[in-house]
Amino acid sequence: MKHWDVEGKTVIAIDVLRATSTMVSLLGHGAEGIVPVETIEEALQIATRQDLLAGERSCVKIPGFALGNSPVEFSAQEVRGKKIVFTTTNGTRAIQSATDASFLLAGAIVNAKACAKAVISLRRDLILLCAGTQERFALEDGVCAGLIISEIRAISDQTLHLSDFSMAMEQAYEGCSHRLEDTLLSCEGGIRLAALGLKDDVQFCSQKNTLDIVPILRDGMMLPLE
Amino acid sequence: MKHWDVEGKTVIAIDVLRATSTMVSLLGHGAEGIVPVETIEEALQIATRQDLLAGERSCVKIPGFALGNSPVEFSAQEVRGKKIVFTTTNGTRAIQSATDASFLLAGAIVNAKACAKAVISLRRDLILLCAGTQERFALEDGVCAGLIISEIRAISDQTLHLSDFSMAMEQAYEGCSHRLEDTLLSCEGGIRLAALGLKDDVQFCSQKNTLDIVPILRDGMMLPLE
Repeated sequence: MKHWDVEGKTVIAIDVLRATSTMVSLLGHGAEGIVPVETIEEALQIATRQDLLAGERSCVKIPGFALGNSPVEFSAQEVRGKKIVFTTTNGTRAIQSATDASFLLAGAIVNAKACAKAVISLRRDLILLCAGTQERFALEDGVCAGLIISEIRAISDQTLHLSDFSMAMEQAYEGCSHRLEDTLLSCEGGIRLAALGLKDDVQFCSQKNTLDIVPILRDGMMLPLE
Repeated sequence: MKHWDVEGKTVIAIDVLRATSTMVSLLGHGAEGIVPVETIEEALQIATRQDLLAGERSCVKIPGFALGNSPVEFSAQEVRGKKIVFTTTNGTRAIQSATDASFLLAGAIVNAKACAKAVISLRRDLILLCAGTQERFALEDGVCAGLIISEIRAISDQTLHLSDFSMAMEQAYEGCSHRLEDTLLSCEGGIRLAALGLKDDVQFCSQKNTLDIVPILRDGMMLPLE
């Protein structure tokens, strides 16, 4: 998935349904940090007895893991102070592909405005890295990228220089900003999750700017940006 | 560029700035047909003395050719009844990549509604093939795809089944439908053409549904669909 030159840049990895939404939710519930890993084997290898294993394959929780990839399935009590070792199909792969960035953040609809503030304070060019689903474009990730651009535009005092694709995503967001939940429920990923009984997850993930937390990668762990 | 299975389908090739807009304009001015070819050599080889050579490289008319790739540079008198042998950087390549389709049309903003009517009467699944610029996404082509979807939705009595990317393009169109000309002048292709003194071309290409003509490929030539 490494098609970009991320060096010297801020990268926001976006996997709205559900990896990056879940990361934001985990840190919002007091988890100490999240270690994104690509494989189940790697997760089992590095997790200590104090850590929580979390992750999914094909939208389903990995057998034996404490948590799946749902932003609403855990309590603060369960995750507070814990290190979460986390592996998902597309989201963690996106993160792994951009570890050379100066700053690597996790973005979602729930923390879009917080991401915008972070991007401006970090003062670098920005790449919005939409995870998609198995190398295919996922609507919810594109719409989230457009929302983040729109939030940056709202608070930045500089002219934005956007690629054509970024412009299209900002317009796509504008075209559905008044019906985000419906949009997420009508795209391929949302339909799949709803069919698995996970409509609550989709609803959580479509709420705009509900969390003021930005996960940032430091020494292999996603931590809340101060 | 051949990533899709086009067999059995209707394909609309879209290169708004400017190849498909120019094709529609040429047929609208009475040209008999347009033969899209990939190389300058091929164009020189197949054109007879009665034919007109047209085309560009890097937005500039090919030396010795009668016409460039502008939808506004010719008169009806000049092109009426003529066969045009046409080679452009991205548009003709897109067409060549989809010749296995059941029906291959040329779409642009100027003939979007006419394309929508054609798609419905041809009764096949549809692929909107955005030419882009050197394998990169071009905003104007995505917006045009979204406009065509929106026109189909307006007149179809069936539920549309769209890919996530098609949904994003329809939303992108909705996000800028009230300012198409500004949008085309602000994307990479529009900026490039305006800098070359071709703002009139961009303005022509951003006018919605001004021409009721759909070019369709028959035996190697784009002809007006009856």
